[in-house]
Amino acid sequence: MKKKEYNSDSKLKIIPLGGLEQIGMNITAFEYEDSIIVVDCGLSFPADDMLGIDLVIPDTTYLENHIDKVKGFVITHGHEDHIGALPYVLRKINVPVYATRLTMGIIENKLKEHNLMGTTKRKVIKFGQSVNLGQFRVEYIKTNHSIVDAAALAIYSPAGIVVHTGDFKVDYTPVYGDAIDLQRFAELGKKGVLALMCDSTNAERPGFTQSEKTVGKTFDNLFAEHKNTRIFVATFASNVDRVQQIINTAYKFGRKVAVEGRSMVNILETAMNLECINVPENTLVDLDQLKNFPPDQQVIITTGSQGESMAALSRMANNMHRKITIGAGDTVIFSSSPIPGNEKPVTKIINELLRKGADVIFQDAHVSGHACQEEIKLIYTLVHPKYAIPVHGEYKHLKAQANIANSLGIDKENIFMLSSGEVLELDEQSAEVTGRVPVGSILVDGLGVGDVGNVVLRDRQHLAEDGIVIVVMSLDRASGELLAGPDIVSRGFVYVRESDELMDEARYVVDVAIQACLDRGITDWGKLKATTKDALSDLIWKKTKRRPMILPIIMEV
Amino acid sequence: MKKKEYNSDSKLKIIPLGGLEQIGMNITAFEYEDSIIVVDCGLSFPADDMLGIDLVIPDTTYLENHIDKVKGFVITHGHEDHIGALPYVLRKINVPVYATRLTMGIIENKLKEHNLMGTTKRKVIKFGQSVNLGQFRVEYIKTNHSIVDAAALAIYSPAGIVVHTGDFKVDYTPVYGDAIDLQRFAELGKKGVLALMCDSTNAERPGFTQSEKTVGKTFDNLFAEHKNTRIFVATFASNVDRVQQIINTAYKFGRKVAVEGRSMVNILETAMNLECINVPENTLVDLDQLKNFPPDQQVIITTGSQGESMAALSRMANNMHRKITIGAGDTVIFSSSPIPGNEKPVTKIINELLRKGADVIFQDAHVSGHACQEEIKLIYTLVHPKYAIPVHGEYKHLKAQANIANSLGIDKENIFMLSSGEVLELDEQSAEVTGRVPVGSILVDGLGVGDVGNVVLRDRQHLAEDGIVIVVMSLDRASGELLAGPDIVSRGFVYVRESDELMDEARYVVDVAIQACLDRGITDWGKLKATTKDALSDLIWKKTKRRPMILPIIMEV
Repeated sequence: MKKKEYNSDSKLKIIPLGGLEQIGMNITAFEYEDSIIVVDCGLSFPADDMLGIDLVIPDTTYLENHIDKVKGFVITHGHEDHIGALPYVLRKINVPVYATRLTMGIIENKLKEHNLMGTTKRKVIKFGQSVNLGQFRVEYIKTNHSIVDAAALAIYSPAGIVVHTGDFKVDYTPVYGDAIDLQRFAELGKKGVLALMCDSTNAERPGFTQSEKTVGKTFDNLFAEHKNTRIFVATFASNVDRVQQIINTAYKFGRKVAVEGRSMVNILETAMNLECINVPENTLVDLDQLKNFPPDQQVIITTGSQGESMAALSRMANNMHRKITIGAGDTVIFSSSPIPGNEKPVTKIINELLRKGADVIFQDAHVSGHACQEEIKLIYTLVHPKYAIPVHGEYKHLKAQANIANSLGIDKENIFMLSSGEVLELDEQSAEVTGRVPVGSILVDGLGVGDVGNVVLRDRQHLAEDGIVIVVMSLDRASGELLAGPDIVSRGFVYVRESDELMDEARYVVDVAIQACLDRGITDWGKLKATTKDALSDLIWKKTKRRPMILPIIMEV
Repeated sequence: MKKKEYNSDSKLKIIPLGGLEQIGMNITAFEYEDSIIVVDCGLSFPADDMLGIDLVIPDTTYLENHIDKVKGFVITHGHEDHIGALPYVLRKINVPVYATRLTMGIIENKLKEHNLMGTTKRKVIKFGQSVNLGQFRVEYIKTNHSIVDAAALAIYSPAGIVVHTGDFKVDYTPVYGDAIDLQRFAELGKKGVLALMCDSTNAERPGFTQSEKTVGKTFDNLFAEHKNTRIFVATFASNVDRVQQIINTAYKFGRKVAVEGRSMVNILETAMNLECINVPENTLVDLDQLKNFPPDQQVIITTGSQGESMAALSRMANNMHRKITIGAGDTVIFSSSPIPGNEKPVTKIINELLRKGADVIFQDAHVSGHACQEEIKLIYTLVHPKYAIPVHGEYKHLKAQANIANSLGIDKENIFMLSSGEVLELDEQSAEVTGRVPVGSILVDGLGVGDVGNVVLRDRQHLAEDGIVIVVMSLDRASGELLAGPDIVSRGFVYVRESDELMDEARYVVDVAIQACLDRGITDWGKLKATTKDALSDLIWKKTKRRPMILPIIMEV
């Protein structure tokens, strides 16, 4: 990684510190002379090979090195991949946080958990409002997404205006609040926009994403078809509009609603406090109260739609929930689709629910929160940017958007498929990648932030694959003589009680190898350990075709 | 698990020993009085939590306990989930194997690898032929599937006829050989069929599965659109018809074809020897020869369409292949769809290929090998069974087929959603589950078959999650005094060089705890180990919120 840093000049620098070439961990720095603002500060969930890791946050060394310039975090919406790293990053970069109402509500829940409320400056911004941050002005523009109060940002700099869509879709009939402010996008386009950074998540999908309201109609139909059963609806905790629609339908059908799953309860409470959701009186009840009503008057909204094994739905399906068990006569609606990678756990829970006798509906009760190709084209046409910088998505999604931008007449050389860490310098005259800043993933495991790195992960992968074989022996400090051992202990390798012969042979092989060393006067621990490793791994490979980690430990007495 | 066994009587017993409630590991015993035949003998691939496991084979204890009755294996087709366990099971149950030509060719490749050719009786069966096995007669019926020579079986027993479809689809225009023998299904239906065991894989999908030939047209179009580039096609090694069509299109466009990936080369060779594939002269060339032709005259057919990290496609995309690197100007066609669970690795390789500048086509160049709902209805209507026993699929697939069977007029009590191990006894008068036999999954890890069980797997999961902390100490045999240690070694827990403080504290805490024991005269190793574990895990949880495996080792000197 080149650590070269670039002097400010009078161009605008756009520096994605994460979020490109990956899903999640969205964070982008905008720099102009003495000012840096940061759009979003998200986490990502660990990749399959990051064993034992809880979550992943971005390396913000670049911001730390330029802490005097950093004016604030401007947040687009309240999803984990846009806000989740804030409690970690704010400890090092304590600057104000700007966000819309519900977004700030969700951020504040996090800050409370991390005891950061007292030390974090926060300002709620309304749609249409702007905030001045050094050389920048940032305007919040209403959009639609799978969470209430999502915003696009118009970032005004002396080098020109950059429009950042955040995650968005075009919903002409949203459940809560207004449709996306297309007029403002058009005005900005008329004024002249330097660059558009647009959500690529659904850039491979033709057509338009359906309105959130269509899901409400689906709920009406499903509730009408299942009048005589208890109904469970599993969805994303943060999708307040979805919860609103479930509540609306439940109310229409004279059902009471309880909400289960910690994250959902939290966000719903926040949304109710902020009046982002409108619950008819006597509709929402406590889970304990719910059982006073007959099953056909019950609705349980729950987390766990991604098959998470510890979430409420999974526990209710597997008889592991304290209060509720799903079984014959229940209807379970998945109001979600599996996030890529979660297909198998989702299928597993569907199978379990069916086996228990529940009726499971896992299609058609969900719409995406991201813009499809026609919506992306609409935004490009309104904003009419000079440069296109596809964001939010894996490479294939960015590429799909680049193709769309090109098809709309933007020259290929004005479309930038950035990698995290690249510094794009731009103004009306030109744009080019002029360097790199350090970026990376910092792994969070329990309380440890960054103490698990590649070495530890490689060890975990090795241990996971074939286990560990430990060889301990005691040597006499003075004579170098073998006083005890070699003893062999293994974990995760073979079932020892049924592998006596192999373990005996292993002990013998190590014993012979060590004695041969000692007889030749070799007492160097490094040599002895290497000899042990070689002898044992040869034997084990020959006998089992496995390669457990071999760990010789020598004690001196 | 009840081990009760049931005396033969004059009913037919159908006993699935695997393959239900899961994908893969298909194996079903049919028993009538003194005769048992076994349909298929497949493996399954390890679940995500089976760390380090290579493959999974069925527990065949029931067959071993009734070895005198077992007359043979009748195999439906040559996919791993139907034949993969044969080399392991034949060692314990050495009875003849019956299969069609290509199926037997693929089985023989396996037997050669395992040195079992000399000891395994084999008989190739033609479509329309029958084989007598004790009280059973088994007739092979032509079907269509994503592998050549797939068969359905009509199993004649004194209690009635059972039709087992194997994996199938209805293809009126197959690439090789005849369409599925619908007339024979109809004749059997006229005669009277006791039970139908039908493939459920696509039972959730409405409509008809497209003919394999439609993919050939897609290849023609894609090759016409990419006349100037080198073309790679990634597909399943065993899909000989697919390879045939790629070769046909390549030939039309004047291109040479090379095949890459060991499993594909093997199966292609077998298929050519058996004349299941028809390669125009001078079309197939060696990979080394291919480079003598210009890129626009090259086609490389490769394995790795599921994103397997060690397969040819992945190596070619990641510059890890000895001979070929995919890059700008290449076109890569995925003639496959991701098997559930493989979505992320497939996406990963697509991103990598796009990043390298290749053009990637991952839609529309594939059709399924399994029957959709209308085909399943067709087979039910022709066969008109008394009992329906959905097979091949997870619970949700079986359930979907049960719903189809019911919609066709089969009473719910005549539809059996069996679990592996259940004994279904049936004849014209009645059918019911009368008991269970032992079933299970045997894990294969390297050369070890069954030596990795739950204990070892749990340890691997524990090690994978948080690593291991080993505490070693030497005690004086006579006095019980602490001679050396406690020393602490960890792997996969924290990066030790940056965790001095924690490790020092750990050593201190253990030292204090052990000394306290010794001072009180406690020298029982169990007690000392338990004390060490408790003291250390408390400290580590408090400091890190992690729970590594803690392994105290005491040496006596």
